[in-house]
Amino acid sequence: MSLLVVGSVALDTVETPHGRAERILGGSANYFAAAATLLGPVRVVGVVGHDYPLDQLAFLEARGADLSGVERVEGESFFWAGRYSPDLNDRETLETRLGVFADFKPRIPDGFRDARLVFLGNIDPVLQLEVLEQVDRPDLVACDTMNYWIDGSREPLLALLKRVDVLVINDSEARHLAGTANLVEAAAWIRAHGPTHVVVKKGEHGAVLFGPDSVFFAPGYPLADVVDPTGAGDAFAGGFMGYLAGARGLDSGDLRRAMIYGSATGSFAVERFGLDRFVDLTVAEIIQRVEEFKEMTAFEHDLEAVYGE
Amino acid sequence: MSLLVVGSVALDTVETPHGRAERILGGSANYFAAAATLLGPVRVVGVVGHDYPLDQLAFLEARGADLSGVERVEGESFFWAGRYSPDLNDRETLETRLGVFADFKPRIPDGFRDARLVFLGNIDPVLQLEVLEQVDRPDLVACDTMNYWIDGSREPLLALLKRVDVLVINDSEARHLAGTANLVEAAAWIRAHGPTHVVVKKGEHGAVLFGPDSVFFAPGYPLADVVDPTGAGDAFAGGFMGYLAGARGLDSGDLRRAMIYGSATGSFAVERFGLDRFVDLTVAEIIQRVEEFKEMTAFEHDLEAVYGE
Repeated sequence: MSLLVVGSVALDTVETPHGRAERILGGSANYFAAAATLLGPVRVVGVVGHDYPLDQLAFLEARGADLSGVERVEGESFFWAGRYSPDLNDRETLETRLGVFADFKPRIPDGFRDARLVFLGNIDPVLQLEVLEQVDRPDLVACDTMNYWIDGSREPLLALLKRVDVLVINDSEARHLAGTANLVEAAAWIRAHGPTHVVVKKGEHGAVLFGPDSVFFAPGYPLADVVDPTGAGDAFAGGFMGYLAGARGLDSGDLRRAMIYGSATGSFAVERFGLDRFVDLTVAEIIQRVEEFKEMTAFEHDLEAVYGE
Repeated sequence: MSLLVVGSVALDTVETPHGRAERILGGSANYFAAAATLLGPVRVVGVVGHDYPLDQLAFLEARGADLSGVERVEGESFFWAGRYSPDLNDRETLETRLGVFADFKPRIPDGFRDARLVFLGNIDPVLQLEVLEQVDRPDLVACDTMNYWIDGSREPLLALLKRVDVLVINDSEARHLAGTANLVEAAAWIRAHGPTHVVVKKGEHGAVLFGPDSVFFAPGYPLADVVDPTGAGDAFAGGFMGYLAGARGLDSGDLRRAMIYGSATGSFAVERFGLDRFVDLTVAEIIQRVEEFKEMTAFEHDLEAVYGE
């Protein structure tokens, strides 16, 4: 199924206990596409400035990313600089320069409008709604958001949620959006406001899918060495939607598998700085990790062992 | 298999957003036994003062808890008072009176010494070692500990770990013990210091079993309403060990099932104040929750859906 993503295409300077990487490829659309293209083609919509090294995205194009929706305009590209705490659980933003992203008005190329799957990366909900005005009739719309929009653009965000099938959101943001500390309550609140499914991302603790009549847990992959946590959530979304793009349907089993593929691609993202791990990542490696997830959650429930002797 | 637990038998006064409960049954041995007795008989060793309402533990005895190892001595029982934050993620200790627990010297009754499974609740590692001197040859020894002992009794704790098969520990304590923020590294460090298996408890995020050649994830049960988080970790341990007491063996499959039973009993513990939920809890309810866990982690991995069309 054809897949469209709209989001940020940025340059990041990142400091982690593993070192520092300057002006590397970043942004939600890039992480999303890097993960998703391993599973199927992706149409990307975003904006960059005159300074963006688009040639470094050639590996994505070679793999099936259509970057014709990435507009290049005069000005500087979106730039973010941040530093992670020694335990990688917190990060401090050192600098944010929106540049050309400040005036980003997503324009969906004609050839992109019939996308059957749409992912609205974490941008102003007003713009996310405008994207939906420009696409035909997608089978599934998913979106991300953050506290900045939850606080500052609540009305458009609530209007957006009514038109979204899957909200993909961090656990702290889900609690904030719903105004409750309890994640189960938060997911129910969100589902009552539109999305049939909520995917709650919990970082190293994995992700949870809340649906109409079931809950599904995808663990976080146990990594002994995390180099750069940036983009893990977007790479999760890319694996999730990328899997669905290649799947035969959008039923509950497909969504469960998509969760595991998302958890796998999210875990690869953090193994190196920026998009580096995706450059030579193979589908076979993703599938191997999915099989490991299966092994890490499998148990036989033998009732005789409980009752018997 | 016969199961012995040594731990605290306390009175708690607990404040949560759901209300306040005064001088209710608490302590690690009580929570452990309340969960474990649903799955098999338990021998309990602890100490209480003259003020302890042992009659309130009659429901445990009726279910197969042998409390003949709970010594009653002159003085006040161990008392703890605490208040949880509105989101239940933090708690403040308002009062701790060790009472007779300050001089607790576990004495294992003769009839308890041949226990095949031993759980050493969270007490001074010197005492935990003394318990091991008093038992015959258990097939499996598990223990819990906390930052207070990690900092103040490190040497005896490390000596203890050499004699323990399974360390059951909170995630923050595991990181503290091993001196690393990474949980996979922390588990490897702990396993290198004795235990073949480490069970890392992560509260609402579930628990992870790290073994010689595999990792197993047990999710936290999604509860919309948590009344009192006290004792969840001990109830987890009780379900874990109680399952093993009823199991036919101690192989990797048994340990996986034990994790899920632990996650189930831990989740029941928090549904009411103190031990209340266990008074009328049935094995059938536990088994139903185990089946729900199976459903919440199950996925089919159809490679054709990834590669094919």
